Amino acid sequence: MARIVMKFGGTSVGDCDRIKNVARRVKAEVERGNEVAVVVSAMSGVTNQLVDYCKQISPLYDPREYDAVVSTGEQVTIGLLAIALQELGLDARSWCGWQLPVRTDGAHGKARIESIDTTGMLAAMNKGQIAVMAGFQGLGPDSRISTLGRGGSDTSAVALAAALHADRCDIYTDVDGIYTTDPRIVAKARKLDKITYEEMLELASLGAKVLQTRSVEMAMKHRVRVQVLSSFVDMPGTLVCDEDEIVEKELVSGIAYSRDEAKITLVKVADRPGVAAAIFGPLADNNVNVDMIVQNVSEDGKSTDLTFTVGKADLDRAIKVLEDRKTELAYERLVPDSDVVKVSVIGMGMRSHAGVAQKMFQTLAEKGINILVISTSEIKVSVLIAEDYTELALRALHSAYGLDVQ
Amino acid sequence: MARIVMKFGGTSVGDCDRIKNVARRVKAEVERGNEVAVVVSAMSGVTNQLVDYCKQISPLYDPREYDAVVSTGEQVTIGLLAIALQELGLDARSWCGWQLPVRTDGAHGKARIESIDTTGMLAAMNKGQIAVMAGFQGLGPDSRISTLGRGGSDTSAVALAAALHADRCDIYTDVDGIYTTDPRIVAKARKLDKITYEEMLELASLGAKVLQTRSVEMAMKHRVRVQVLSSFVDMPGTLVCDEDEIVEKELVSGIAYSRDEAKITLVKVADRPGVAAAIFGPLADNNVNVDMIVQNVSEDGKSTDLTFTVGKADLDRAIKVLEDRKTELAYERLVPDSDVVKVSVIGMGMRSHAGVAQKMFQTLAEKGINILVISTSEIKVSVLIAEDYTELALRALHSAYGLDVQ
Repeated sequence: MARIVMKFGGTSVGDCDRIKNVARRVKAEVERGNEVAVVVSAMSGVTNQLVDYCKQISPLYDPREYDAVVSTGEQVTIGLLAIALQELGLDARSWCGWQLPVRTDGAHGKARIESIDTTGMLAAMNKGQIAVMAGFQGLGPDSRISTLGRGGSDTSAVALAAALHADRCDIYTDVDGIYTTDPRIVAKARKLDKITYEEMLELASLGAKVLQTRSVEMAMKHRVRVQVLSSFVDMPGTLVCDEDEIVEKELVSGIAYSRDEAKITLVKVADRPGVAAAIFGPLADNNVNVDMIVQNVSEDGKSTDLTFTVGKADLDRAIKVLEDRKTELAYERLVPDSDVVKVSVIGMGMRSHAGVAQKMFQTLAEKGINILVISTSEIKVSVLIAEDYTELALRALHSAYGLDVQ
Repeated sequence: MARIVMKFGGTSVGDCDRIKNVARRVKAEVERGNEVAVVVSAMSGVTNQLVDYCKQISPLYDPREYDAVVSTGEQVTIGLLAIALQELGLDARSWCGWQLPVRTDGAHGKARIESIDTTGMLAAMNKGQIAVMAGFQGLGPDSRISTLGRGGSDTSAVALAAALHADRCDIYTDVDGIYTTDPRIVAKARKLDKITYEEMLELASLGAKVLQTRSVEMAMKHRVRVQVLSSFVDMPGTLVCDEDEIVEKELVSGIAYSRDEAKITLVKVADRPGVAAAIFGPLADNNVNVDMIVQNVSEDGKSTDLTFTVGKADLDRAIKVLEDRKTELAYERLVPDSDVVKVSVIGMGMRSHAGVAQKMFQTLAEKGINILVISTSEIKVSVLIAEDYTELALRALHSAYGLDVQ
């Protein structure tokens, strides 16, 4: 017997028929002899409606009251799913965050889970009862309802799996797993059987919006095995797990891309100590996150060109911050460019194998794609290129690293 | 400074604009120098939608899960109203039933309030914070959410007023007070300034559906002064209070009617001891409530006619129970009649004044209205008449007791 946490998102519980369908999937898992706890989101559309109500009343709503309002979406789903499970002859009960409780910090609207007291739930599960827990919510130190921020139900599920020492946390969603790259762009994209936490983290933060980044961090920290699979088709998905569990390691596991970045070049910035701090300090103070940075070699020993990327949504704010300091920073001109894409090659294998970056540069060069900025980490190489080349680059790299479906 | 509990029903908080309107009414009360706690229902339509979801999943839903689902309606409203009050510059916070807690018995779906712990709420109110409490909900002995049954928010408000030792509980609704009779039928109906708990109880249970019966019982028990007034127009309503507070007592306060009754006559029932028990025992066992009962004088010393009323919804069940026992009860035939109405004259004054019943019988006789059944209590006289005469009877009685607007 294994202990499994099953998590279903808003689309999977979008109406009463879909909730009944989820109940059948849970029943099938129970009939395989497994002990099951379920975590659910609000029915799709409900949270948006509730958020909209808060904004209608006041754009500057109190996040504690916002939490009281929006947390009701999940509370409805857990009650309905418990009823649906009972209708199938199973023993089940719903659990609100405050009923366990799921303790969080006090950051209402974007709280972090600190601990989960599973005493009551485990006692009920030991008697054969299926636990149905509301995702996205907990109890703050002020004894008021807190929510984890959008997409937080994944994190709730992983945290519950950790607290219950579950054998696996199955995240049911509207895709059937993690792919080597975006299958809407690369037809030969392949579903991965397994992927490491580290690779998944890079993929998640690079725009493959299947799992919330924080849930992957939590899974990695507590070594929770997470499976991503479809709630609509009945087949295995992708297991996110420890490196040790993956026997056949690929050099490169996937190619990610993000259109959410914009590039800024400061032409002829003074080349002297303290300039980088004078530029990036004010940006950070204004909540502009800077990702990739490249500084050209100075030609005249006095000035240089500095290029970096910021989130597309932050571009206007970044430009204003820099223009306000033009005299102080003494650059000649500022060149923004939002028609760019960041393409990343990700793989644990590149820690021990040289040549991964070289193959990327070469492949892009063969296709005539100019690289604007490069950044690397232990398990990934990212390049910034013109957005028009996104599809071409993805397909070429996917083939070059031998990822295409045979 | 007075301490006031204000209660707003579903229509009053039906959308975001109406919630803002409620916030303005609360602000006005605070600006009069009063300390305020607010109790609200779910936005109109929301509870029905949630109940419908439960029924869609399973007609035989678990009432504990039903409570988890339907209690979310009030939770949304308290959060939104707290935000609206803050938007007006007031300090306010929402309170779910479990947060005080409002302790109830374990009858999920129709729980009764047992006690309210106001420690936390009072501490916050003493600092000038407006408390916004969810009506209709509490915490059962199983530490799960309970609900009080439909219309329970009135009871929540009165119970909170009792627990807070409030000076008054104002129930805002879509009518502007309690009338001497139904103004849709009698154009000369008059709004009462004051009415006693006892009279209001008779009115409430006789079909004047302004206040939930249980809330009036609770108000009477704890001597909570309740005002019924409109949430849409700004004028005093009707105060439900102790008899001592009413200086000018009317002989008769109001005329109520109920179309929810049906009459059954058993012709030629054996006239011997134990027959009444043999008839009404099985009806009670089958959850049929019997209201008025009249037994004719026996003519032959052997048999008699027995007439009584039951709820219209219970009529078919009552007939089946009696027909199943026809041999045992030995009646000649059963005559049902659902085209009847119960008209009641209500007034504290009739305890000390004779002639109230006589005036009723005489007035109806003058209009040629036949009385089918009569029943009386200390403060009311009820008659059953043919339904067609409802309006005629109400207008005639309203004039006869001098209740008409001058």
